Amino acid sequence: MQEDMGECSPEFDTFAGIRESYHSTARQMRKSLPKKHILLVSTSTTHGTGYLEHCQNEIKELLGDHQSILFIPYARPGGISHTDYTAKAREAFEAMGIKLSGVHEAENAIAAVEQAEAVFIGGGNTFLLLRQLYANKLIEPLQKRVEQGMPYMGTSAGTNVAGKTIGTTNDMPIVFPKSFDALQLVPFNINPHYLDPLPDSTHMGETRETRIQEFHIHNRQPVVGLREGSMLRIEGERINLLGPHPARIFLQGQPAMEFKPGDDINFLMEAY
Amino acid sequence: MQEDMGECSPEFDTFAGIRESYHSTARQMRKSLPKKHILLVSTSTTHGTGYLEHCQNEIKELLGDHQSILFIPYARPGGISHTDYTAKAREAFEAMGIKLSGVHEAENAIAAVEQAEAVFIGGGNTFLLLRQLYANKLIEPLQKRVEQGMPYMGTSAGTNVAGKTIGTTNDMPIVFPKSFDALQLVPFNINPHYLDPLPDSTHMGETRETRIQEFHIHNRQPVVGLREGSMLRIEGERINLLGPHPARIFLQGQPAMEFKPGDDINFLMEAY
Repeated sequence: MQEDMGECSPEFDTFAGIRESYHSTARQMRKSLPKKHILLVSTSTTHGTGYLEHCQNEIKELLGDHQSILFIPYARPGGISHTDYTAKAREAFEAMGIKLSGVHEAENAIAAVEQAEAVFIGGGNTFLLLRQLYANKLIEPLQKRVEQGMPYMGTSAGTNVAGKTIGTTNDMPIVFPKSFDALQLVPFNINPHYLDPLPDSTHMGETRETRIQEFHIHNRQPVVGLREGSMLRIEGERINLLGPHPARIFLQGQPAMEFKPGDDINFLMEAY
Repeated sequence: MQEDMGECSPEFDTFAGIRESYHSTARQMRKSLPKKHILLVSTSTTHGTGYLEHCQNEIKELLGDHQSILFIPYARPGGISHTDYTAKAREAFEAMGIKLSGVHEAENAIAAVEQAEAVFIGGGNTFLLLRQLYANKLIEPLQKRVEQGMPYMGTSAGTNVAGKTIGTTNDMPIVFPKSFDALQLVPFNINPHYLDPLPDSTHMGETRETRIQEFHIHNRQPVVGLREGSMLRIEGERINLLGPHPARIFLQGQPAMEFKPGDDINFLMEAY
């Protein structure tokens, strides 16, 4: 039996080796598998709450043990300076015990992204933001870091640029970006500050829904209409809707659909 | 005396010749001086009126004795086809006794513009419109014909593209145009469907005024906020505001100003 087992053992050992090697590869793969940690917030400030107040718990959950975040102030809401905008964001994050620095303060913006524990892109003008992301060559570094698992959060314009293109922004095209292609951290488009039609409006401009339907005549990616107070939380390849409201989701060629928080919206991550 | 007059006459004749030559040049200049005939309408349809109904008198005045107009349907409001959009415009113009053809019906769009008695660009999506104007190489032909005195009218997106850039459109950037530079028939920008802030709104998106102020951080041309029902009428280098409402005019670095119909707004034509 000893001999038999002895005879068997090399084969047995080989199998064990293969099995171990397989498990080790799987562990390795799980470890190296792109794991996205993303929080996309419709608006930084809801009616009656302070800056980032309504999404504070979600921010803390996103950041976990991380203790610092890099802020990208390029969208300059209301034309505010990078310095003033960063001071505002810093105040909100310091209250949560998180150290915040502005990317414009760094000697090398690319290196700052490469070394950041987490990144937050604030709201403002989406065209200006995307133009500055291209001008400072931050598109690829941001994509790479998010793929590697660095937490990313955006509000408003910062949520918009996380999508496939900025083609569903509500903003005024105050500057010309070299492309509408955005960071593409998710394979769909987002319309932040999504607004339902006002039933008694006499204004003849298009409703938000009409605009998104026009978008779908020329583009095929899904569009998520994210009402104020709503958030999307992506963890790996799973996505969840958070906040008090349903989201209005538009697929090309189909009537708009409403999804409540808790509903399965993972089909969005399989868009192409 | 005859001799004296004879002696004088060559000199006298010379002066007369110079004078006549001067007047002839002036007449020539007046004739060849670029004479613009332009009507820029905020919206094709005001609340409670039919398509082009509220600006019918102004259209007739613009067109004078002309009996046909070329329609450019590229902006496709709500994604309507070129054919359907042209049919809608044709119905409105035929009711005024004006023959209308769609530029997409012509074998050669450039030749159609070169031969048109007048041109009307309808509303819809400004990005799509400008992209199609570039794609069909109509920018220069339109500029040239308007400089030569061909009447031009636009509504909404068609008004927007008459300005210096489309940087103050309200539309969604559903397609990427190769530039935001527009027809530049006037040396300023226009914001059609201009909306005053809603006093009791809880929506956190920017007001129209805030957006235009952001535009002026990056651009210096004046912006005319044209409320629904308002029109700009340009005749030569004179401009007038028509319709029931004042216009809100934004100059870089200055507080917004209100101008009533009848007020002198000719400074707009001297912008550069």
